[in-house]
This record gives sequence, structure tokens and C-alpha cells, in this order.
Amino acid sequence: MANRLITFTTDFGLSDHFVGTMKGVVAGIAPQARVIDISHDIAPYNVTEAAFVIAEAWPYFPKGTIHVVVVDPGVGSSRRPILAEAGGHFFIAPDNGVLSLVFDAAAHKARVISNPKFMRREISRTFHGRDIFAPAAAHLAKGAKSAAFGKVIHDYVRTWSAKPASKGKDSWRGAILKVDRFGNLITNFAARDFAAITARPFEMRAGAKHIHRLALTYAETEVGDLFVIVGSAGYLEIAANQASAASLLGCGAGASVELDFH
Amino acid sequence: MANRLITFTTDFGLSDHFVGTMKGVVAGIAPQARVIDISHDIAPYNVTEAAFVIAEAWPYFPKGTIHVVVVDPGVGSSRRPILAEAGGHFFIAPDNGVLSLVFDAAAHKARVISNPKFMRREISRTFHGRDIFAPAAAHLAKGAKSAAFGKVIHDYVRTWSAKPASKGKDSWRGAILKVDRFGNLITNFAARDFAAITARPFEMRAGAKHIHRLALTYAETEVGDLFVIVGSAGYLEIAANQASAASLLGCGAGASVELDFH
Amino acid sequence: MANRLITFTTDFGLSDHFVGTMKGVVAGIAPQARVIDISHDIAPYNVTEAAFVIAEAWPYFPKGTIHVVVVDPGVGSSRRPILAEAGGHFFIAPDNGVLSLVFDAAAHKARVISNPKFMRREISRTFHGRDIFAPAAAHLAKGAKSAAFGKVIHDYVRTWSAKPASKGKDSWRGAILKVDRFGNLITNFAARDFAAITARPFEMRAGAKHIHRLALTYAETEVGDLFVIVGSAGYLEIAANQASAASLLGCGAGASVELDFH
Repeated sequence: MANRLITFTTDFGLSDHFVGTMKGVVAGIAPQARVIDISHDIAPYNVTEAAFVIAEAWPYFPKGTIHVVVVDPGVGSSRRPILAEAGGHFFIAPDNGVLSLVFDAAAHKARVISNPKFMRREISRTFHGRDIFAPAAAHLAKGAKSAAFGKVIHDYVRTWSAKPASKGKDSWRGAILKVDRFGNLITNFAARDFAAITARPFEMRAGAKHIHRLALTYAETEVGDLFVIVGSAGYLEIAANQASAASLLGCGAGASVELDFH
Repeated sequence: MANRLITFTTDFGLSDHFVGTMKGVVAGIAPQARVIDISHDIAPYNVTEAAFVIAEAWPYFPKGTIHVVVVDPGVGSSRRPILAEAGGHFFIAPDNGVLSLVFDAAAHKARVISNPKFMRREISRTFHGRDIFAPAAAHLAKGAKSAAFGKVIHDYVRTWSAKPASKGKDSWRGAILKVDRFGNLITNFAARDFAAITARPFEMRAGAKHIHRLALTYAETEVGDLFVIVGSAGYLEIAANQASAASLLGCGAGASVELDFH
Repeated sequence: MANRLITFTTDFGLSDHFVGTMKGVVAGIAPQARVIDISHDIAPYNVTEAAFVIAEAWPYFPKGTIHVVVVDPGVGSSRRPILAEAGGHFFIAPDNGVLSLVFDAAAHKARVISNPKFMRREISRTFHGRDIFAPAAAHLAKGAKSAAFGKVIHDYVRTWSAKPASKGKDSWRGAILKVDRFGNLITNFAARDFAAITARPFEMRAGAKHIHRLALTYAETEVGDLFVIVGSAGYLEIAANQASAASLLGCGAGASVELDFH
């Protein structure tokens, strides 16, 4: 009875009954479990954004927490539900790459969830959050052992967007992980891995724009300027002074970003 | 001390202090009670939409759960607050028809809430969620007996929109229960009651449109097509391929829908 | 171990991982503490609106509740974090005036939070909600004594907008505290302090408009009329019949309002 804390990250929004229904299912199976919402406002079907949000939040929860992530464009298809263990935490999600950044950050193991004992009796084609993911989390919270859920798999999905890929000498292709509320584009270029950007001339390309400038603070830029800055999550971000970089570039989470050093 | 789980469904939004205040009132009366939000984004005063949302969610909660529904255009008038029991659950709401779909689904009993012992001492004219509904739920969660709240009534409100009404042979008048986030219009025509739609020519009318087509999947339709489809809640829905049916028809929750078989 | 109830009021929104992360930090330090959200939709950096929202909600919570308010335009600067006690409740916030209305309502005492034992080891420049405010609340919930957090201060910030200031005989300058969801402008003119408005001719000025009319109910006004009305929070509000007063006047929380009696 060690793990009673469950988090939810979905693209269900809060206008419908979906999130409440999932909490009802948890309460019915594991009355002592507590659910904490990370976010239900992930852009619909945006696996990349969900991958970023859960990756930012999970390290701040206590060990043993069960994180449920349901951004699931493939619901109803043959994509598998998985239960992963990473860094002493549990993760329950569709096998679509949404845990890629978690897998990057910590040693991990993944299982397919196949034991019908831990699912609702009837599985709908459209709402696995209620029928598979919430019940699995609740049974785990109630004390079920990971091994009882299904067998270990090694061919789980890890997306290309978790880390920038080398395109050749000094040339990389990465991705936008999230648009923040100010329109800043958070890339998957970790500042610690691309520290050279502070010392060398560079070009970052995203949407229709080429950016050559690194700013240390907003204060040193002019209104409307477009620049790269190190964001609070530790990634390079594309930002604009008092404007939305996302609007200026016309792109969002999942879009590709290229970086070349000259 | 059996019932400690309370759900909230309101049109209060989450920008104001209203929902938090109701939870404070619950915590003051019944510190052990747990509140789960179903939705606070019901369209303002839309009793029909709230009726649908609570009807979809409550069956997934454990028996004994106390569901508080506050969408209350008549607050401050003489409409009564009620406490209903249905299917082993409790429901606390204004007597305005918001529980109609729950009453359709399960044997039930309703009481007026008249005992001032279970209300705040001062009752405002505008915020009965805080002054009447939240305290009633908290006292029930704490162990008060239903019978202590007030006497059983039989003339509680049930809206016309809960079920389609027959207009003559093969002709029905129903209602839109909810617009989902994709703009699909969920009607109150239960698929199991109108299975004939898969076999017979029909016309469904809503807003300015006449629809004659049933689709089994979105994949068989073209972009912009308007059609009827069986939705995940088990109701006929009016949908459009990659477009908002609500925008195309110009109508929302509470609007009427007619169905004729030919 | 008396205080286990914590509330959160922030301008972080619910689309990002910020609020979930703060709850993870609390759960790690004080697993028994319960967090209740008041609102996370305060307009970004709007200290005045946050001051109003927490002032409306806190009196309805049980004594001993710990209220965390993080609307913090000065994060990363030298503004201090404070722990205040008022009316038997605890308040944790940046020292920027956000508690001004609480301080107006109840006898109080404030301390600077300076003890690093109650903070995360690494303090970011941008996310004190996670690194300072949430940990402080959790340690307090777990039983730490107020006095251990830091020394009592008397020079904490109280904003001009908490109460209208006299500009001369029968002339006052106040502020808009909040725009409600209908576009009504809630002022800081408490109805009980300005009861004269029901008896004497007056002019209220806000944005580009001069208002001379008091209405007791919406029903007595015409569509589009602009008037003053006593709102449910006990303050004078500027309202418009079936229109947004905020749009008509072009102003929001923090804007100034003048009232003259003739």
C-alpha cells in the first residue's frame, strides 16, 4: 500500500465529464488514492507537448508516485497501453512516445498492460482513460505488483523529438516541445548540451525565420526583436520582446527546429 | 460516516473565488470529506448541458457519493433546493430539472432541503452554492440522515429535454444536450432507442440544416460533410468532418432537434 | 500537526506544469497536507485581482488554513517572501501588497521567510512558487512554528488600492479590484462605507465614463445602460445591462475609480 499518489496529464480539457469520470473510477477501486492534476490543457493529440509537461513535473513528486498521461491519438487502434518504471516513479500511458523525455532522464523498464483484471470489464473504443489507464493506476495504488500487469517489452516507442539529432558537423535538427503562455517556443535543445551557443555564431531556423541572436535577458532587446534565450526549464527558447514568437514564426509544439554553428 | 466523497458540477468557471470558497465551506464542516471536480465550465445558466454532464459522470463513482450540481439561473427566486437519492448516490441541486437525466436512469426519491441547521446562518441572494448546496453536502458527508434535510416531494421539475417526445407517427422532437470540444452536437436521441436510423431513410433537423446521412465512421465522409453518427456516450450526434457542426448549424445545448423517419 | 489544509491562488494558469509541480513539492514534504485551488486564472501579474480573490475566499476556510498566493511580478528581484498570520489563518506570499485586503480585514503579523531550511536547496530565479512558497506551506502544514521562518517585520507592503483614499470633501479615489465573468467592474468602495450613495446625487468616473445612476436590480435598467449596483461581495460594482462594463469603459483590475458626492 505504498503508492497512493496519482497524477493526471491529459488533453481532455475541463469542460467535459472526462476527467471527473476518471477520478470516479479511481475512487471506486482505490478509495485512499489521491489524484493531483498536472494539466488537462495539453493541445489536443499533441504528444510532444504532453511529453514535455510530464518530464518537467515528475521529478518534483515523491518516489512511488503513479503518473497517468493520456494524450492518445491512436486510441482504438492497436497501440499498446504501457506501465513504465523510471527513477522510482511509475508511468501509465499509451505507447506512442509520450514518455520519451522521461526515458531520456532516468533508467527505466516498460511493460505492456495486458492483464484484463486491471481494466474495466467493457473497453470502449474511444475512452481508454476511463477503461484502461485510470483503473491500472488505481490497482497499482492499491498494491498490485507491476509484474502482474503484463510482460516487459523493449520495443516501446521513443520519438525523434526527445533530443536533437546530428545532421552533420555543427548541424542539428530538433523540435519545439511547447509554446508557453507568452508565445515563447521551448525547444528540445538543452542549454547544457549546446553551451557553444554563447560563444559561437549560429543560425537557428524554425517556421519561416532565421535567428542569429542570443539574449541573456529580455531587457537587452527591443520590442518585436526575435532571439534565442535560455529558459527556466533549461532549454533554448525562441522568444520575442513583447510579442508572441509562436505567432511570428507560425509554428507550435512538434514543429522542427534546426541549429547550425558557423 | 459512510459518504465522504463529494463531486462538484457548476457554471462558476475557475477564474473567480467561487469554487474555492465552496470547498472551504465543506472543509470547515466535514474535514474528512474529499471533493472531486466534474466540471466548472458548464455554459453559464445552461441547465441542459449540466444535466448531461452529471448524467455521464455519476455512474462511474462509488455508491454513496454526493454529487452537487449548481447551475442555477433561478437563484434568489423561490425555486427550491433539493436532495435526491438515485441508484445509491446522493444529488444536491436546485429544483430546475438539472437532475432529469439522472432521474431517467435510476429509481429515485427527492426531498426539499428546508432544515436551516444544514445551511449557513446568512443566506445571500446570489451564492447558494456557498450558503446552501455546499453545506448540505458537507453535513451529509459528515453523517446527517437524508430525512433530516426536509420532506419528500413529488412535484420536482423534470425537463422536456431529457427524452425525445413523439410528435406523431415516426416523428420526434428532442434536444441538443451538449456541444463537445470538436463542435459535435450530442442529442438526446439514445442510439439504442432509435436503432431504426441504421435501416430507414430519415431526416434530422436542427438549426437551419436538414441531415439525411448516417455515418458509421468519420473515415467514410468527406471534409465538410454533415452527418449523424453514434457517439461515445451512446447518443446520436450531429457531426461534421473537420468542421464544427455547432457553427454550421448555429445552435448549442438546449436547442431543439427533430427526427422523422420516412 | 494542526494545519493540514493549504490553498493556492496564482496567475500560473492550468496549461503548464507549474501548479502540478508545486503540489508535487508539497506532497513530498507533507504527504498528509491537502491542497485546494482557489484560482490559477488571476490575470498575469495582476496583484490587485489576486488581493481581491484571496480576500473573498479565506474567511470561508477553517482556522489554521495556510493560504499560498503567488502573483509575483517581482520574482527574481529583491522583494521578500513573507509569512503572515491574520484572523487565525496563515498566508504565504511575495511582499508586494497582495495581502493588503486581508490585512485590512483582520489583526495580523508578518514575518520575512528567510530560513533556508524551509526552502528547496536550489532557488531558481523564476519559479519561487516551487522553490520557496510551496515548501514553506508544506513545512508549516507539517508542524513547523511560524517563528522559525524568520523575523517579524513591520514595513511589509500595503497597496493604495485596498481602500479608497479621500481626495477632499465628498471626493474619493479608489480602484477596480476585479472584472467578473460578466464584465462587471468590482470596485474597492465597500457598500457599507459608502451607503450615502443610495441617498445623494453622485458621479463615479472610471475609464472614459461618468456614471450617475444607482440601480437596485438589473430589472429596472434597459439594455446597454451603465450603472452602479451593490454586488454580492459587498462592494459597489459598475455594471451594464446585457453588456460588459469592462468593454464599455476600457478598463480592468488595478485601474482607478473616482467617486464624488454632490
